[in-house]
Amino acid sequence: MKVEPRTLPGFMELLPNEQIQFNAMVDKIRKSYEKFGFLPIDTPIIENAAVLLAKAGGETEKQIYRFNKGENDLALRFDLTVPLAKYVTEYYNDITFPFKRYQIGKVYRGERPQKGRYREFYQCDIDIIGEGTLSIINDAEMPSVIYTTIKELGFNDFTIRINNRKILNGLYMELGLEEKSVDIMRIIDKIDKIGKENVEKCLEDLEVEPEKIDKIMTFIGIEGTTDEKIQKLKALNFKNELFIKGVDELSEVVKYVRYFGVPDDNFKVDLTIARGLDYYTGTVYETFLNDYREVGSVCSGGRYDNLTEYYSDRKMSGVGVSIGLTRLFYKLNELNIIREKEKSIAKVLVVSMTTNINRALEVGAIFRNNNINTDVYSEDKKIKAKFKYADKLRIPFVAIIGEDEEKNGTVSLKNMETGEQEELKIEEAVKKLCS
Amino acid sequence: MKVEPRTLPGFMELLPNEQIQFNAMVDKIRKSYEKFGFLPIDTPIIENAAVLLAKAGGETEKQIYRFNKGENDLALRFDLTVPLAKYVTEYYNDITFPFKRYQIGKVYRGERPQKGRYREFYQCDIDIIGEGTLSIINDAEMPSVIYTTIKELGFNDFTIRINNRKILNGLYMELGLEEKSVDIMRIIDKIDKIGKENVEKCLEDLEVEPEKIDKIMTFIGIEGTTDEKIQKLKALNFKNELFIKGVDELSEVVKYVRYFGVPDDNFKVDLTIARGLDYYTGTVYETFLNDYREVGSVCSGGRYDNLTEYYSDRKMSGVGVSIGLTRLFYKLNELNIIREKEKSIAKVLVVSMTTNINRALEVGAIFRNNNINTDVYSEDKKIKAKFKYADKLRIPFVAIIGEDEEKNGTVSLKNMETGEQEELKIEEAVKKLCS
Repeated sequence: MKVEPRTLPGFMELLPNEQIQFNAMVDKIRKSYEKFGFLPIDTPIIENAAVLLAKAGGETEKQIYRFNKGENDLALRFDLTVPLAKYVTEYYNDITFPFKRYQIGKVYRGERPQKGRYREFYQCDIDIIGEGTLSIINDAEMPSVIYTTIKELGFNDFTIRINNRKILNGLYMELGLEEKSVDIMRIIDKIDKIGKENVEKCLEDLEVEPEKIDKIMTFIGIEGTTDEKIQKLKALNFKNELFIKGVDELSEVVKYVRYFGVPDDNFKVDLTIARGLDYYTGTVYETFLNDYREVGSVCSGGRYDNLTEYYSDRKMSGVGVSIGLTRLFYKLNELNIIREKEKSIAKVLVVSMTTNINRALEVGAIFRNNNINTDVYSEDKKIKAKFKYADKLRIPFVAIIGEDEEKNGTVSLKNMETGEQEELKIEEAVKKLCS
Repeated sequence: MKVEPRTLPGFMELLPNEQIQFNAMVDKIRKSYEKFGFLPIDTPIIENAAVLLAKAGGETEKQIYRFNKGENDLALRFDLTVPLAKYVTEYYNDITFPFKRYQIGKVYRGERPQKGRYREFYQCDIDIIGEGTLSIINDAEMPSVIYTTIKELGFNDFTIRINNRKILNGLYMELGLEEKSVDIMRIIDKIDKIGKENVEKCLEDLEVEPEKIDKIMTFIGIEGTTDEKIQKLKALNFKNELFIKGVDELSEVVKYVRYFGVPDDNFKVDLTIARGLDYYTGTVYETFLNDYREVGSVCSGGRYDNLTEYYSDRKMSGVGVSIGLTRLFYKLNELNIIREKEKSIAKVLVVSMTTNINRALEVGAIFRNNNINTDVYSEDKKIKAKFKYADKLRIPFVAIIGEDEEKNGTVSLKNMETGEQEELKIEEAVKKLCS
């Protein structure tokens, strides 16, 4: 009896040519994170369930992959933030603060599988963790990293939206709506999807008084340039201290974001974003590709006050953002806008026109010694099959070795795109392939 | 109540400076695999238990992480070969053969944890899969990839040991010992550890007749150069067809390995190696660092006739090798011979001598635009703390910006190793940092 070789639903598995494109995106994200000096870490996928669930609850707990092995109650990580909290607490004495780390890895959530939702997916996270406090300048570094990364991925028209939870929370305190603030933020977060009118309706349903709804709508309706918005926030003249602090922070972040070199075209203040997760306490970010709003936010995050509260009395604050790469790749693929050119791994395929492959192997070795990714076709197939192989793998050059080439110490190098072919000395072929 | 933030035993978790070294090794392995045109794939870590266990049994089944989620019987992959078998069967129609793939990823085995044994560890695999048959030249490509990879990792004195299971199986057929062949190979495999005499004793315990023990010992005692060994194998004049086929294959592999450019210093025929796993049917490999034999084989593998027999009637033969990177890293670290220099992610740390950080942020942006990995110290700490940060992270340069530098449009670039410091125009600093 044969077993049916089926990959589980909700698990992305790519063909090699797609995998090449996916890996190119990972490489670019990593390169961009390293450009800012973030350090790599790689935590286990399996952890003690008690460690992962120290803070979780609700949906997370339902979705988590949890199981026993021997006497151990284990679980698969569902994000990279909880393992980071564990890591900084566990290795506190060996870590240099502020701790700038990146981690790119798979996380697991047993969601009901649906189009574009994955149970195993890559997150690409950066965070800066401070001992106790952490300068607001770090909040401005995040948009700079996002800017560099999204550019590196090949996009130009995107907007990093920045807000500050203190402003929102201050507003609700000012209005005496603290208890409803989480619900209100959830409603406002949907404004792009459901529109202003529906936001008002939802707020009515929540039994927010009409004059307070007016104030909220005025607040989230603040328009203008980034600087104008900040002016208008200040002009509201709210006395709530948290609100004032939030506006100050936002204004600082904007100032420093500019020193970091992020153009005004690529970021803006957006008073409607809150980021659902309750651990954000200050600056929050979302990033949208303006031509592809349907992709959703491609890079989000924010500032949190106490990363390690479930593990330690030591207070660690931080700020971070994350790219959900598996979903992003799926969406870009679906939209047919993967910005990687079709790429091959090998730059050249060496094929022998005769039954003697020895010279082809030697030439392959020479190419590789010159740092050229080189495949040698070694099956005993017709020449047509050899070219078809190069074609299917999109290898840009084929180096042909027949009797003449072997005698002359040359190869005939064929450009698979243009069809051009020329007989070259090995050194000349190397030069051409390196260019 | 705080939860204790503990990583599970048997799970490697590195500090950032070690992680940098680990990642450098991964990068080199990947680069070397790609130099031969191997294509990347990335299969899920979770699979249907039935798929993973189609062929397993014994130890594997005991060690596997297996659990239910909803109604699904799931398991974590314990190697990258079974997922490859699944992959080539599942995507058969979309794959170009011969299929050269690499996969670098974590696998899971719930072994009893002990020093240097991990429950989560990286395997770095390459395989070439043929439809039906696969040329023997591919068996010679493996040592060439191993050679390139181990060199790339910084080692020169290593030996790739090559044998052929057909020779061993043919020998036991010739001697009428087929039924005991697996046990005999297991014993001989230990010859390096237990010595010749103990091998003889073990064979006696297995009730192998004395004259047959003599023949076995003569066989595994064959000495000389690679070519002499092959000559002596031929001179044994065994009539068994499998034996003859094996010697022919071995001799072909040796011939082609040389065309691939592997020096005779770095490979040899070793008639004692068999590789325990029963699926190998031809060429087998092990690789030892000659100065560090205690590390064990750093790269092993072999040829198999029927990769997908549990999933499909279609016959797929292949050849592959694997590097167990987590264990290798552990061992090299323990021996203090990680060949990576101590590396940092950032090439330069920009620090401000004044309370005004704006210029430091601008200079950081200029450096990054010139592709220099750059960290800017943005906490409000004493200058000593800033240098200590650079020191701990082993960042080789600090770019200092005081009032003078800001006025002059310069930085004072300090080489952290030599202590030298010079005031440079930004373009000059860029040039120096890029060199």
